[in-house]
Amino acid sequence: MGYNVMARTCPSRVVLHRIGARWTVFVVNALEHGPKRFVELKTHIQGITPKVLTETLRTLERDGLVLRTDHEENPPRVEYELTELGRSLLEPLRAVRRWAEAHVPEIEAANAAAAARES
Amino acid sequence: MGYNVMARTCPSRVVLHRIGARWTVFVVNALEHGPKRFVELKTHIQGITPKVLTETLRTLERDGLVLRTDHEENPPRVEYELTELGRSLLEPLRAVRRWAEAHVPEIEAANAAAAARES
Repeated sequence: MGYNVMARTCPSRVVLHRIGARWTVFVVNALEHGPKRFVELKTHIQGITPKVLTETLRTLERDGLVLRTDHEENPPRVEYELTELGRSLLEPLRAVRRWAEAHVPEIEAANAAAAARES
Repeated sequence: MGYNVMARTCPSRVVLHRIGARWTVFVVNALEHGPKRFVELKTHIQGITPKVLTETLRTLERDGLVLRTDHEENPPRVEYELTELGRSLLEPLRAVRRWAEAHVPEIEAANAAAAARES
């Protein structure tokens, strides 16, 4: 079946908007090297609020990208890890992350040039 | 210099949020095969509003990803195309688009399973 994000009612558009959600790329990348606890994720993704991290993890879990495991220990130990489906998203999102990290100077130069044109 | 999107004040995070903006992936993909006029983009990206398309194009232009050319004809002919920098973003965003189009059934199955668990 042919899915096409450019088509208004195509369900792939919903998927694309979901994986494009502001913090998804951070959480998926942060889980690259294996399971992490909530507090580890929060420390790794500097500045993410607990509320946003909770919501992002919940959405990723509902979409089958992240598995939440409660080890039922005392004190509680809950871990998050990428599912196989989540791991398949890692490479595309890692490429986007790498692009952002590689092109800061060009974007900043373009922004400065645009600001100069407009002033 | 090492940019890292996980660091709170790293400028690469601003870049990542910018290229992760809701409609960026659509506009960049829509310009894949060469220059397009505003109305062509609007037709191609079904359901995008003129206001959102205008804003997205303006941001992409300011970031040096899209070049706007006014051919100064009458009636006016204005075209948008990817710059070299914009083309370098095409492959990562195309991969994300392809992922979304390829994994609809799995995401829908995961959503259905989650809904069943919660009811």
